[in-house]
Amino acid sequence: MKLYIGNQNYSSWSLRAWVIFAQNNLDVEVEKLTLFTPEFYQTLSEITPTAKVPTLVDSNVTTWDSLAILEYVNEQYLDGRCWPESPSERAKARALASEMHSGFMALRNELPMNCRARRHVELSESALADIQRIDAMWSEQMHLFPEQWLFGEWSIADAMYAPVALRFRTYGIKLSEPAQRYQEKVLSSAAILRWLAEASSESDIVSEDEAGVDVD
Amino acid sequence: MKLYIGNQNYSSWSLRAWVIFAQNNLDVEVEKLTLFTPEFYQTLSEITPTAKVPTLVDSNVTTWDSLAILEYVNEQYLDGRCWPESPSERAKARALASEMHSGFMALRNELPMNCRARRHVELSESALADIQRIDAMWSEQMHLFPEQWLFGEWSIADAMYAPVALRFRTYGIKLSEPAQRYQEKVLSSAAILRWLAEASSESDIVSEDEAGVDVD
Ligand SMILES: N[C@@H](CCC(=O)N[C@@H](CS)C(=O)NCC(=O)O)C(=O)O
Ligand SMILES: N[C@@H](CCC(=O)N[C@@H](CS)C(=O)NCC(=O)O)C(=O)O
Repeated sequence: MKLYIGNQNYSSWSLRAWVIFAQNNLDVEVEKLTLFTPEFYQTLSEITPTAKVPTLVDSNVTTWDSLAILEYVNEQYLDGRCWPESPSERAKARALASEMHSGFMALRNELPMNCRARRHVELSESALADIQRIDAMWSEQMHLFPEQWLFGEWSIADAMYAPVALRFRTYGIKLSEPAQRYQEKVLSSAAILRWLAEASSESDIVSEDEAGVDVD
Repeated sequence: MKLYIGNQNYSSWSLRAWVIFAQNNLDVEVEKLTLFTPEFYQTLSEITPTAKVPTLVDSNVTTWDSLAILEYVNEQYLDGRCWPESPSERAKARALASEMHSGFMALRNELPMNCRARRHVELSESALADIQRIDAMWSEQMHLFPEQWLFGEWSIADAMYAPVALRFRTYGIKLSEPAQRYQEKVLSSAAILRWLAEASSESDIVSEDEAGVDVD
């Protein structure tokens, strides 16, 4: 299998697909393309109709979109264990994953993923509401599954929120105590440490994703 | 099971969840709430953290978000048959469904679903690109599965694009011939005819979703 991703410093959707491989010790060849370059669009438009990352090529199966890739890898290679086993928890995990996949536009616009930066931003009411919703969601899950992933075992819901944990660090967002514990669990996981190490060797600047003013 | 939906004239996400029941003759109690009213938010905020439609309540399982509901109903009640059986077609169907779930923002903003209206709108470049992508997608699937649903048998991908077929009619969008054949298949299906009949008894106006100028 070959996974096409963007700059690891910036590409939050790439991280969501990449992390299911890293978290489950599943082999994949990774091809990194620099976002918004001609080579990026040329390479991807030859294999997908949307020319976005992440894209997964598994012999005759090409899948674009993070959530579709996560469902595919989970079904084909991980016996479905990356969703909770109980139907009610699985339904909730899918609802949380879908909230991220389709929403939180203010958070996504105002707090772009930028792993190496430490910034201050002024936030709109909508972005503050997004943060509050995610804080409440993480806290509720930490109450149900203390010291664990969102649904106990690692799941696709954790993949969807991994970039959010990084964003909250970049912009110094204060969380309630249980939500902060979950954030720390994500940030200290081996998979995320590996992603950050790989991102730290990059030097390209994507100006669209540079928000806020530096803090030290 | 109880499915909460919004005004059938306007609520495209509600239709996506509703249609899996109608298409598969699966019983569900439908509760219609008038969008953006105090009663809408009060009813939904008691059962979900997001207060949006569609929301499904199945005894102790509450699911919000169209895609999460579709996955849930398909797994729990339809033996998974609403995704194609072949892994490669299933991956593609999920990618197409995800494109709709996370994207086509210009189309969604400029061509809001409005079943009873017949309108003309001036479209942005982005909306035209969205239409072109959907035309290409439908045409490609009609080439692979002539005279059938997007993947032969009806699937969740068809649920996701059902409101788009209605939007294209409302705004008189010209499609290529194969894409138009698919649109007609959707519009003449028993499930969509039932939705339209139910929508036609509504008289509430949601001004946010009134775009364009009347044509006759
Ligand atoms: N819904 C898609 C979104 C993918 C996406 O927007 N990826 C960005 C990078 S993080 C991209 O490829 N942007 C290039 C472009 O839009 O031209 C998913 O979940 O994978
Ligand atoms: N991602 C959600 C979107 C649901 C959605 O935005 N629903 C609209 C009606 S079509 C709604 O409830 N709007 C009320 C509001 O946003 O306050 C889904 O796929 O179900």
